[in-house]
Amino acid sequence: KTITTDKALVRVQDLIPEKADQLIWLRARVHTSRAKGKQCFLVLRQQQFNVQALVAVGDHASKQMVKFAANITKESIVDVEAFVKKVEQKIESCSQQDVELHIERIFVISQAEPRLPLQLEDAVRPDGEGEEEGRATVNQDTKLDNRVIDLRTTTSQAIFRLQSGVCQLFRDTLTKKGFVEIQTPKIISAASEGGANVFTVSYFKTSAYLAQSPQLYKQMCICADFDKVFCVGPVFRAEDSNTHRHLTEFVGLDIEMAFNYHYHEVIDSITDTMVQIFKGLRDNFQTEIQTVNKQFPSEPFKFLEPTLRLEYTEAVAMLREAGVEMGDEDDLSTPNEKLLGRLVKEKYDTDFYVLDKYPLAVRPFYTMPDPNIPKYSNSYDMFMRGEEILSGAQRVHDAQLLTERAIHHQIDLEKIKAYIDSFRYGAPPHGGGGIGLERVCMLYLGLHNVRQTSMFPRDPKRLTP
Amino acid sequence: KTITTDKALVRVQDLIPEKADQLIWLRARVHTSRAKGKQCFLVLRQQQFNVQALVAVGDHASKQMVKFAANITKESIVDVEAFVKKVEQKIESCSQQDVELHIERIFVISQAEPRLPLQLEDAVRPDGEGEEEGRATVNQDTKLDNRVIDLRTTTSQAIFRLQSGVCQLFRDTLTKKGFVEIQTPKIISAASEGGANVFTVSYFKTSAYLAQSPQLYKQMCICADFDKVFCVGPVFRAEDSNTHRHLTEFVGLDIEMAFNYHYHEVIDSITDTMVQIFKGLRDNFQTEIQTVNKQFPSEPFKFLEPTLRLEYTEAVAMLREAGVEMGDEDDLSTPNEKLLGRLVKEKYDTDFYVLDKYPLAVRPFYTMPDPNIPKYSNSYDMFMRGEEILSGAQRVHDAQLLTERAIHHQIDLEKIKAYIDSFRYGAPPHGGGGIGLERVCMLYLGLHNVRQTSMFPRDPKRLTP
Repeated sequence: KTITTDKALVRVQDLIPEKADQLIWLRARVHTSRAKGKQCFLVLRQQQFNVQALVAVGDHASKQMVKFAANITKESIVDVEAFVKKVEQKIESCSQQDVELHIERIFVISQAEPRLPLQLEDAVRPDGEGEEEGRATVNQDTKLDNRVIDLRTTTSQAIFRLQSGVCQLFRDTLTKKGFVEIQTPKIISAASEGGANVFTVSYFKTSAYLAQSPQLYKQMCICADFDKVFCVGPVFRAEDSNTHRHLTEFVGLDIEMAFNYHYHEVIDSITDTMVQIFKGLRDNFQTEIQTVNKQFPSEPFKFLEPTLRLEYTEAVAMLREAGVEMGDEDDLSTPNEKLLGRLVKEKYDTDFYVLDKYPLAVRPFYTMPDPNIPKYSNSYDMFMRGEEILSGAQRVHDAQLLTERAIHHQIDLEKIKAYIDSFRYGAPPHGGGGIGLERVCMLYLGLHNVRQTSMFPRDPKRLTP
Repeated sequence: KTITTDKALVRVQDLIPEKADQLIWLRARVHTSRAKGKQCFLVLRQQQFNVQALVAVGDHASKQMVKFAANITKESIVDVEAFVKKVEQKIESCSQQDVELHIERIFVISQAEPRLPLQLEDAVRPDGEGEEEGRATVNQDTKLDNRVIDLRTTTSQAIFRLQSGVCQLFRDTLTKKGFVEIQTPKIISAASEGGANVFTVSYFKTSAYLAQSPQLYKQMCICADFDKVFCVGPVFRAEDSNTHRHLTEFVGLDIEMAFNYHYHEVIDSITDTMVQIFKGLRDNFQTEIQTVNKQFPSEPFKFLEPTLRLEYTEAVAMLREAGVEMGDEDDLSTPNEKLLGRLVKEKYDTDFYVLDKYPLAVRPFYTMPDPNIPKYSNSYDMFMRGEEILSGAQRVHDAQLLTERAIHHQIDLEKIKAYIDSFRYGAPPHGGGGIGLERVCMLYLGLHNVRQTSMFPRDPKRLTP
């Protein structure tokens, strides 16, 4: 390699008592700084790790140097040369509690502006804590407006490292099961699901749309013999919904597969994938989970093996027993969805379950009807902590039946011609579903707003940063 | 699990002599069918594997059944119950050469329409082969118009399974190096690189743009202490370029990282990632490579370890020696890029190299100038078989210098305010680059059109399927 240097930089988390009395170089942010007479105390930070450092007038530091250090703005990046020193009393406020740094030299690599739009310690303060002392918390819009700083907090670092883990666990599990990753186009010529809630794009001399889901393309890959496919990518919804769980752009984790005998093969593949994700998070992301819990306390996420599968009729019965009035073929309202989640948790002690066999009337036209009871369908939703994270179904794979279903739904056949034509040259029985990444992260961690688990969220009112 | 059945389906590739005389069930496509007197010969296909099958009038099949089998349209999906039989003479035309199936029962699972818009055997025929016999090949637009069928060919199956491998190798290598996967928004409020070549989206009562690259967001993550990040996602370019290597939507494999001492740390990380991809493909995708080579012959892809890094001045000298007239600060034209690739291949025997230290004048405003020779810059391109697959640089991480560079490029500061502001609160030195997935696959396999390595390509003239 071409790089040589006489200063090897160490990492903050490696500053342990075994390094005592060594002279080291370190690059870190100035987390806090406090001058006190002839000394300046700094806390130096790298991601979630920090260490106390001291510049004191003496053999190696002049009065001017102490003054210089004291004037370095918070969040600036510095290189320091320092001796590692054991401390007698643990430094409770730092991740490195047993040592501090005695600084010999200090250089500013990148200077932060003196006025920060938000303070990191305010941004990680749990709701209500320190209110009596008049300490501030930071509201969500201020956090999002200044995301570059907000993402530096221990909470944000933990959330997005865990999110990276969800994607990896999703893909690794499916790859092991023989799935192939596909890339589907986001600019499409026709709005596949009828045209509502779709963003329009100017496309040279014509116009196009942003894909509301990769479903058509996943299904085409099944018709093209890829057998089992998945994709991870943006999904666009032009819904003017300003709720805690809707975004106009989110990341879809999508699955589609041919099955041999029964669409429950698809449900089993998806639920097993979710269980592998839950286990991987539990086993490998405990630090991140606990870091988030410090600011946003929640119960550990519970799941069963095998995953609980309820039929829609059972759910309706449970809701009716709890006093809800609803018809057999009514869809679940959001409050009933949440209530059902609580009832299921009480009865089965799980935060994750599948609701199978939805009424045909409340599902899209391409949903396969139940062959035995025509008012139901081979379709399912999956829920985490009582909120929907996946919607899926066996799809109609016969062009003739698909045409009939589209007519029944009064869909303009001309607009979905390409979709229907995909099934004219032999199509195996198949099914799948789409998972919202941000919702999975939000609900796994017990958070209450999907904007917390989207790095740069997009909603009807937010397009920046 | 909930699924029971009395017919366990076997896979075509598992039909080997050891299975002889077993009665099995199989689901497959009818690849070809040929009736001959009291017999019907079928070839049954699953992806790249196929096997000969026979229905003959006798104990288990009636005359009607032979007629029924003979009438099943090509590309239909069937379930067959059959005895596996060893054959005396190898069946050269099938992947399973040592056995054939004697069909007892046959069911049509999904019937294909009788007229196929293209024949699979025509779609995989090498250019020029069979011309004398008047055999057809299929032109690219017909293939793309009927992609569901074209993707069933052995060539397409191999290309896209290899592409799935490229993504996996890219991510696995970077994850091992400590990179974090991020998800960046595709709908953005301002065109970051000045506004040319950007698609406009209607966004509720305002308008927005499609991201031309995730660069700003990758850089924000570096400023937010994620240290090393990557992302895989769609990139949109509203360029009216109708060439073999331009798409309006492609998949970007993007990297960004803070470095300690020198931007060559970034180059080393990227080239090592590419080398891991090349090795992984060579070692794990040999079948796919050879399958593609049957239709599109090419030399095996060569690379060096460590990767060859040339400086721009060396490249200019090589080109001048070969008779090209160009100035020190001229950009590389496409023909010169290709010529340089040939010269490098001759001299160094590699299909992959880095060209470092581009003239500052030909790079975007956010490119870090060379601190020693101001007319050059800390920027680089990477090439495969003489075509560019990555463009990258050390980025200016100082808001003041960035402002000066933008003014020098006559960029409206108001439009890039959010971008510049990202660097005001402490930013480490960093660099990165973006790789085009489809180009990597095209050039690795020695193909000549990027539409061959995009499942559903988008260009100024194509928005479907």
